[in-house]
Amino acid sequence: MKPGGRRAQIVALPFVHTDAIGWGASGSVRVLDQTALPDRVRYDELDSVDGMVDAIRALRVRGAPLIGIAAAMALAAEAGRVRLTAEWLDRAAARLAGARPTAVNLAWAVERMRRVGRELLAQGAAPERVATRLRAEAQAIWDEDAEMCRRIGEAGAELVPDGATVLTHCNTGQLATGGIGTAFGVIATAHRLGKGIDVVACETRPLGQGARLTSWELRREGIPCRVIVDSAAAWLMAQGDVDMVLTGADRIAANGDVANKIGTYALAVLARAHDLPFFVAAPRTTFDLTLPSGDLIPIEQRPAAEIPSGGGSAYNPAFDVTPAELVTGIITDQGVLAPPYPAAIAHLLG
Amino acid sequence: MKPGGRRAQIVALPFVHTDAIGWGASGSVRVLDQTALPDRVRYDELDSVDGMVDAIRALRVRGAPLIGIAAAMALAAEAGRVRLTAEWLDRAAARLAGARPTAVNLAWAVERMRRVGRELLAQGAAPERVATRLRAEAQAIWDEDAEMCRRIGEAGAELVPDGATVLTHCNTGQLATGGIGTAFGVIATAHRLGKGIDVVACETRPLGQGARLTSWELRREGIPCRVIVDSAAAWLMAQGDVDMVLTGADRIAANGDVANKIGTYALAVLARAHDLPFFVAAPRTTFDLTLPSGDLIPIEQRPAAEIPSGGGSAYNPAFDVTPAELVTGIITDQGVLAPPYPAAIAHLLG
Repeated sequence: MKPGGRRAQIVALPFVHTDAIGWGASGSVRVLDQTALPDRVRYDELDSVDGMVDAIRALRVRGAPLIGIAAAMALAAEAGRVRLTAEWLDRAAARLAGARPTAVNLAWAVERMRRVGRELLAQGAAPERVATRLRAEAQAIWDEDAEMCRRIGEAGAELVPDGATVLTHCNTGQLATGGIGTAFGVIATAHRLGKGIDVVACETRPLGQGARLTSWELRREGIPCRVIVDSAAAWLMAQGDVDMVLTGADRIAANGDVANKIGTYALAVLARAHDLPFFVAAPRTTFDLTLPSGDLIPIEQRPAAEIPSGGGSAYNPAFDVTPAELVTGIITDQGVLAPPYPAAIAHLLG
Repeated sequence: MKPGGRRAQIVALPFVHTDAIGWGASGSVRVLDQTALPDRVRYDELDSVDGMVDAIRALRVRGAPLIGIAAAMALAAEAGRVRLTAEWLDRAAARLAGARPTAVNLAWAVERMRRVGRELLAQGAAPERVATRLRAEAQAIWDEDAEMCRRIGEAGAELVPDGATVLTHCNTGQLATGGIGTAFGVIATAHRLGKGIDVVACETRPLGQGARLTSWELRREGIPCRVIVDSAAAWLMAQGDVDMVLTGADRIAANGDVANKIGTYALAVLARAHDLPFFVAAPRTTFDLTLPSGDLIPIEQRPAAEIPSGGGSAYNPAFDVTPAELVTGIITDQGVLAPPYPAAIAHLLG
């Protein structure tokens, strides 16, 4: 490995923005309907807070960083055509933040927008000026996320051995973020560096984000991929067919406990049992220092109907929490955090 | 707990045969199409070896004990209308045994039929007499399996604590056996004893035997059940929401290594990590003393198309092998085997 040559190659990469979201006509927000992928590539134009709340709840827009960006953009879009008041801002922010409970990026982005708007209104700024500023703020949230993804990719790629088989879960790429992705950004960067990696993508039941979305994104990048059923991960590990496990995160508590898509905790336990590293990749916006531990992270219960049960009943927690002691390292836009996490996280965000 | 009273209750239970298979008109075999369940209850009439090979390969008939019974019945059905020779017997047996590689019950049942037919032919018996005897032998295989299920249920029920939440995988009930089932037989017997248990049924991707079949069978028995995605099992264990894990088996090697539906190995590792007992239930016909360890068990690779991958590629091993050291006990028709398994298994089958 020649790190110098490779670093030069990284720097030459374009500054990628996601194509899962964009500004549409007349200030609306254009979102790729992720429930239709990969069969159909179909965009919706949304210009209201309620429309975005519905899109986020239905997972047409999904991924912890992306739903924060999308919510900020929808707030800006509607702010351009309503009588803009502090009360409207508070209500709109509360509706957006309540769309899904687990990913903290959503609440974070919405609160940032609310604060900016509130401050300008308190200074007596004209509503049109506030709306323009909110649109710029949403764009900044998006730009910053894309840049954080790029940095996560660079920091994480160094951890990926040449020729490694990386097992990942759910979807963490351009469809989940404002840029090249978190865990996916690490994979894509390692691939572009010529490391010759391949990926095992867990199907990610019940909604198949791994089978439908990660598999599609890997193909777009030309990265070899095998989709497996979630329950096969352990067997591949036992066969020596996995070198590292790498996932994203929806919220990370102050002690390093990680909430992420259901099944992540199983992978962390299984990685430990097979002496494999388990890495999490996430931007600063995924950390929640208000929660001392993962026990306090709200876990979204999704509709039972998402799981076929032949007319019976199903239990469908959408996320789980992986205790910090199972996490080998957390790849952030500021570098890789190693245990003990409370200190590393406090330093990162301090 | 009053064991005496409870045992009396068990003895009063009817001797249940599966309704997943039966003799049809004119000596054919009537099989319930399990791929259509639970939406449609639909039977096929099969009267040929090749028809049964297709049905077994397509999983219209499935479950380690049941495919052995079904293969024996199909062999008897076709034997009634062909020119019966030793060569025909050998070829028919080889075709049936080759339908699926992992469950040893299939090869065992077919070999038993072949031997019986061969012996009678060698004694100069008339073909009609041989055919009648083969039909009786297939019925005996079925009857014996139903009786073994009943005994497994009795032996295993004693291991299930009152009020326990039992997590199971795939389908091991009447749809998988000649009787009330293996792991499912234990669950049903514990329920009938009034133990107040409830079941967590893993969906069992990619074909949903847990979500479609076990959920349906549990509902028929009135046993409370929650279907979960396979990847959620670990999270339920961490939440204290599982008391024991109980699965069937497709083949058990002489050292106690257990081949079973993909995902079983993950559950065994996760059970160990959460200090939960992991039990396997299987009749004598599932043991294969010719294999010293599980490494030698052939693992069926199923078509990639069973796993949606959005046009990408999938990897689809249908089974995995759980090492004996992760198995708390093996519930058989002769009682519960405890480690060290090589000795216990040799004693059982000796």
